[in-house]
Amino acid sequence: MRSLLPGLLFSITSVAVFAQAEPGHSHKLARSLQFPDVPGYKVMKCDLHQHTVFSDGSVWPDIRVAEALMDGLDAISLTEHLEYQPHKDDIPHPDRNRSYELALKEARDHKLIVIRGSEITRKMPPGHCNAVFINDANKMLISDSVEVFREAKRQNAFVFWNHPNWIKQRTDGIATLTPMHKQLIKEKLLDGIEVVNDVTYSDEALQIALDNNLTIMGTSDIHKLVDWVFDVPKGGHRPITLVFAKEATAESIREGLMNRKTVVFHNNLLIGRDEVLVPLIKESLKTGGAKYTPKTTVLEVEIENVTSCEFMLQNRSKYTFHGHADVITLKPGEKTTIMVKTVNKLTSVDIPFEVLSAINAPKSHPVVTLQVNVN
Amino acid sequence: MRSLLPGLLFSITSVAVFAQAEPGHSHKLARSLQFPDVPGYKVMKCDLHQHTVFSDGSVWPDIRVAEALMDGLDAISLTEHLEYQPHKDDIPHPDRNRSYELALKEARDHKLIVIRGSEITRKMPPGHCNAVFINDANKMLISDSVEVFREAKRQNAFVFWNHPNWIKQRTDGIATLTPMHKQLIKEKLLDGIEVVNDVTYSDEALQIALDNNLTIMGTSDIHKLVDWVFDVPKGGHRPITLVFAKEATAESIREGLMNRKTVVFHNNLLIGRDEVLVPLIKESLKTGGAKYTPKTTVLEVEIENVTSCEFMLQNRSKYTFHGHADVITLKPGEKTTIMVKTVNKLTSVDIPFEVLSAINAPKSHPVVTLQVNVN
Amino acid sequence: MRSLLPGLLFSITSVAVFAQAEPGHSHKLARSLQFPDVPGYKVMKCDLHQHTVFSDGSVWPDIRVAEALMDGLDAISLTEHLEYQPHKDDIPHPDRNRSYELALKEARDHKLIVIRGSEITRKMPPGHCNAVFINDANKMLISDSVEVFREAKRQNAFVFWNHPNWIKQRTDGIATLTPMHKQLIKEKLLDGIEVVNDVTYSDEALQIALDNNLTIMGTSDIHKLVDWVFDVPKGGHRPITLVFAKEATAESIREGLMNRKTVVFHNNLLIGRDEVLVPLIKESLKTGGAKYTPKTTVLEVEIENVTSCEFMLQNRSKYTFHGHADVITLKPGEKTTIMVKTVNKLTSVDIPFEVLSAINAPKSHPVVTLQVNVN
Amino acid sequence: MRSLLPGLLFSITSVAVFAQAEPGHSHKLARSLQFPDVPGYKVMKCDLHQHTVFSDGSVWPDIRVAEALMDGLDAISLTEHLEYQPHKDDIPHPDRNRSYELALKEARDHKLIVIRGSEITRKMPPGHCNAVFINDANKMLISDSVEVFREAKRQNAFVFWNHPNWIKQRTDGIATLTPMHKQLIKEKLLDGIEVVNDVTYSDEALQIALDNNLTIMGTSDIHKLVDWVFDVPKGGHRPITLVFAKEATAESIREGLMNRKTVVFHNNLLIGRDEVLVPLIKESLKTGGAKYTPKTTVLEVEIENVTSCEFMLQNRSKYTFHGHADVITLKPGEKTTIMVKTVNKLTSVDIPFEVLSAINAPKSHPVVTLQVNVN
Repeated sequence: MRSLLPGLLFSITSVAVFAQAEPGHSHKLARSLQFPDVPGYKVMKCDLHQHTVFSDGSVWPDIRVAEALMDGLDAISLTEHLEYQPHKDDIPHPDRNRSYELALKEARDHKLIVIRGSEITRKMPPGHCNAVFINDANKMLISDSVEVFREAKRQNAFVFWNHPNWIKQRTDGIATLTPMHKQLIKEKLLDGIEVVNDVTYSDEALQIALDNNLTIMGTSDIHKLVDWVFDVPKGGHRPITLVFAKEATAESIREGLMNRKTVVFHNNLLIGRDEVLVPLIKESLKTGGAKYTPKTTVLEVEIENVTSCEFMLQNRSKYTFHGHADVITLKPGEKTTIMVKTVNKLTSVDIPFEVLSAINAPKSHPVVTLQVNVN
Repeated sequence: MRSLLPGLLFSITSVAVFAQAEPGHSHKLARSLQFPDVPGYKVMKCDLHQHTVFSDGSVWPDIRVAEALMDGLDAISLTEHLEYQPHKDDIPHPDRNRSYELALKEARDHKLIVIRGSEITRKMPPGHCNAVFINDANKMLISDSVEVFREAKRQNAFVFWNHPNWIKQRTDGIATLTPMHKQLIKEKLLDGIEVVNDVTYSDEALQIALDNNLTIMGTSDIHKLVDWVFDVPKGGHRPITLVFAKEATAESIREGLMNRKTVVFHNNLLIGRDEVLVPLIKESLKTGGAKYTPKTTVLEVEIENVTSCEFMLQNRSKYTFHGHADVITLKPGEKTTIMVKTVNKLTSVDIPFEVLSAINAPKSHPVVTLQVNVN
Repeated sequence: MRSLLPGLLFSITSVAVFAQAEPGHSHKLARSLQFPDVPGYKVMKCDLHQHTVFSDGSVWPDIRVAEALMDGLDAISLTEHLEYQPHKDDIPHPDRNRSYELALKEARDHKLIVIRGSEITRKMPPGHCNAVFINDANKMLISDSVEVFREAKRQNAFVFWNHPNWIKQRTDGIATLTPMHKQLIKEKLLDGIEVVNDVTYSDEALQIALDNNLTIMGTSDIHKLVDWVFDVPKGGHRPITLVFAKEATAESIREGLMNRKTVVFHNNLLIGRDEVLVPLIKESLKTGGAKYTPKTTVLEVEIENVTSCEFMLQNRSKYTFHGHADVITLKPGEKTTIMVKTVNKLTSVDIPFEVLSAINAPKSHPVVTLQVNVN
Repeated sequence: MRSLLPGLLFSITSVAVFAQAEPGHSHKLARSLQFPDVPGYKVMKCDLHQHTVFSDGSVWPDIRVAEALMDGLDAISLTEHLEYQPHKDDIPHPDRNRSYELALKEARDHKLIVIRGSEITRKMPPGHCNAVFINDANKMLISDSVEVFREAKRQNAFVFWNHPNWIKQRTDGIATLTPMHKQLIKEKLLDGIEVVNDVTYSDEALQIALDNNLTIMGTSDIHKLVDWVFDVPKGGHRPITLVFAKEATAESIREGLMNRKTVVFHNNLLIGRDEVLVPLIKESLKTGGAKYTPKTTVLEVEIENVTSCEFMLQNRSKYTFHGHADVITLKPGEKTTIMVKTVNKLTSVDIPFEVLSAINAPKSHPVVTLQVNVN
């Protein structure tokens, strides 16, 4: 068969913009995470679980702000351990609001939203939980493990259970609700649960979220450097929670979290409920008009992945493809052309795909239909 | 959760060895395609459909030999069109064996096997077919479209149908048996069929192969330069047929082809019958002994992908993972650690995976079980 | 000393645009060689010494056209050996114009200029010489080694001596004029000389050019593939001759060559006479307005290298720099900021540099002054 | 000229070993800086000017230890500002030894030497100076600007002047000795001077070092993250001082520093006195036996650059080269073949090069002779 070049040219153009600094001073812009908004909502990129020297982290709050700006985040919270203060010999003062204040000041000339939060750090149960949108961390120093949650709620916090799969507290790594957690959920003292923390992902935590109507969360829980832990120089990224908020404000983020409207982005996975996950996928994969290869019924469909997530799709349509088998990979920021053998000439075509990169329940992937018009 | 660093270090070492030449003279060794042998067979990397200036290609046979050496191939065939000779004003002699002879001479100091072959180039039906392991191409200049196949068989050739999905001869791109093809198959004049040609893949051709017990083939059908057509500088590769041969000889390759023992490698896909596909996958993914993270029932299983194919696996076991969801990607030449939550301490564990990168029938992927011993 | 971040940000933005194709069909646009025009001249990128199957090369002429388009060349000549025809058993016809005609046809829908030319291939003396802008190669089949040059001149050719340093004809690699060459020069039958051929560079050939007022030439002399010989995937490039032509036409190129207005680009070197070399350097390095770091007499000068050549400059000014020693590297397509300690506040400053990447005589580099205005 | 391929193959093999981690936990080994030892001395890689949260830095001491291990350093000092304590509201205790103690503990299971040191931070004069190898930083809190140096000396410290070119204290960026500095030097209270600090280099500081017999120093003066400030992901590195020490111990390092035996490595420059610079260069560039290209007097000399520094050499021999002009670049960790036209067949050859990447005085580069034996 003679090569289709030069007759027919299938091209994908990928533009990579990167900032390369004079040795010494640099802002890495290419690592900035990109996701589109969806109809009715701004998609806010948040990391709501981080540490600094003010509990057991290794950096001053300014580094967390700088990392967040490089990663293109919209909001962060520096959720220091309330009870665990390994640096207290050097940082003795009891003010648990301190890292928040320093970060807020550092971020003031930027668009980054800094949210006040703390990590309630207990043995199991209840383990570790974050309370964000509090107004005074110092009032959270309460010994009773349920009363502290009530205080969080009095401060109008959003509260989520951290790393329920943590092998230090569950040697089998299987996230499991304890009676205390059930009680907290019942009393509406616990709103969410991390399905992703650091480099781990938990199917069981996702199931708990679905069974108990908890907000699905993902965070870095970063203690040292984001660049190292998540291999950013090699293209890796920290986990984030995409919050679907009416506006780009702290209050709207809080509302989105309370309304369970989140998708977690971690390691080329998008984890969330279909209600928000499917619209996000639809906005992520843009198809322009498609056209038939001249004199054939093979339809060239160009799909552009406008996000930082690599998408893996499995063909669930009745059609076969001319250049691919059933699994297709769409790289971040790139356009890929698939050639759909429609057999008949159509004016529009629906192509359902199972989105393997997206998870709406353990081992379950949403099916999303690309609706394509033919030019 | 505190980072596991520096306590527990999960490391993957990837060694990339590449040859960088003095400007002017270079051999690109890193692009060399790698696949393991399987018990009882050598896995021979073959491209049995290529063109040179001796029909409608753009290079002298020495370039095809050089490309094959760079790609680490074991065997090639320069299958010029018998009937289609667009360069005859410049290359007028009727000797159809010429490119084979020139390639053989070029390859004599190397381990590359050069196989004599031709492309029977007809309108549909039967379309284009390759006859390889012939002994004299000049005897193949026969006008009758069935008789030429009988001559091929008299020369003990292996015969396969090229690009049955070619949109120039099938405007819908759907490979379909014609009555003539059925007759050829019935008379044992047609042994195989290309499911991959150039950058195309055909589910329908694969189905025809399975329904009619034909050898599954994949080739480059290269006319210009392999580096350009298959984007080699960016990590791409040409399609090849992995032939399972008793020995590393031409005769053994022929035997393996006649016995339907092939797997096609194209674009991070492996396409073949389970009989050879499953052993190949098992040899491709090496697991050393696994060990439990201390004080947990989370089993660290390191899998090394010793091939040039990126493997995508979907977890079909009863276990969940601590660091992954259900789909895992194993990059070529790299080791990946998965952390299996076995719940109980085991001495060995079976982990079935659906191998999405492998195809044994249209839209069907084999399930292969990793058998892991615990140290 | 406290880091200047975030106060003062020195940033270099480099935009790399690259075309990544669907596996199968690709045009590599990023390798396209870039050079600016200079006042009064278009800078035409030419490779006037190449081979195809029509003498001892390994590709059909269409590949040479495709390579030239990828490299962004303006003009090529396929200068087959007149006398040396190793493929004549397969390509027997005596028409020496053939590869020119095929290339012309291939290039007709593109802006590439194809120039008719041949290589007069003799023992030493005179060795091998190219005659380009001939009108009939078949008339060049003349046995007398001086008469053939007269014929070339009757056809209005531009004639240059190839690889005078070729170790097959000069075991010491030292290009040396023979009496015959002196005669050819005296009779104005020899206009130019290659100082760069394939991967070699010859100081002695450059000296001969300067001593005898010959045009300075550089070519690939490509026989196999440009991508391989010059390591294009790793960022290498073929040698080219930049011809300073009044217009973008073949006749203007010829005129530029006859007028000795050339600069050779090879391996991050620019080789030519100051008359054209210095204006080229000046257009290659763009400085916008410079500004003082606030409250200092340190002047930030941003230099943009708009070419494909990496520039190495050695500071010959009376100033020292705040961020560099005396040798500075300006990478292709990038901006670099140097910080000049002017001591006093100036409104404009001249910074002479010895351009180590440029050669105007053996071991001699031009000094070019950057004239910078202060904002 | 016919290509030398496949006859003669010039190859450079470069092996890049890099560690790619499971997303989450990684140690970047490829960035490790490499330099050979020289006869009689171990070459110790040191960064003796760094900050943490214990003065005005942004990280806990453990990050500095981790960065140093990744960069392959042998010794570090965390030289906090004695007088400047911007974090004192949060870190109020007066113990200036604290960051040293924490770093020492962090480094105890590794081969990294941690040296106690402090930064005497004053207005000009004397500006900022580091005292390393002190035994108690708390005793350095002395208001008199000369007396504090005497205390440093009582503690047997090595003392060096930081960033004498700092534009905050010298608006012209020109390092200049003040009378106080001359007095300190006269009283042997000041031993060294930074010629490199952060991303700056100062010719004037180098001249001061040479005129006053001070130790030549280079440091990062890192406050935030080494990876960011020095663009490590893109191949950049922090400045270091290579100290020529009899043994790999702190005391030997101190002795080496006191004996002025240092070379600074910064941005592909090596800065030092010939006494140590020339032996380092000689050990950095390894030449195996050279051999003549058969039947020629062109000598192939392979040079291997065994360091992390890119070497730029300018040919100062009487020979010309067959593949290069006068300036040659030897990339880190790679072998480069130069082809020397010796004209006569020699049994050994000396090739003097001016090492443009090395500086022994402002705008002055040492000439080093490669002594090559012919096989």
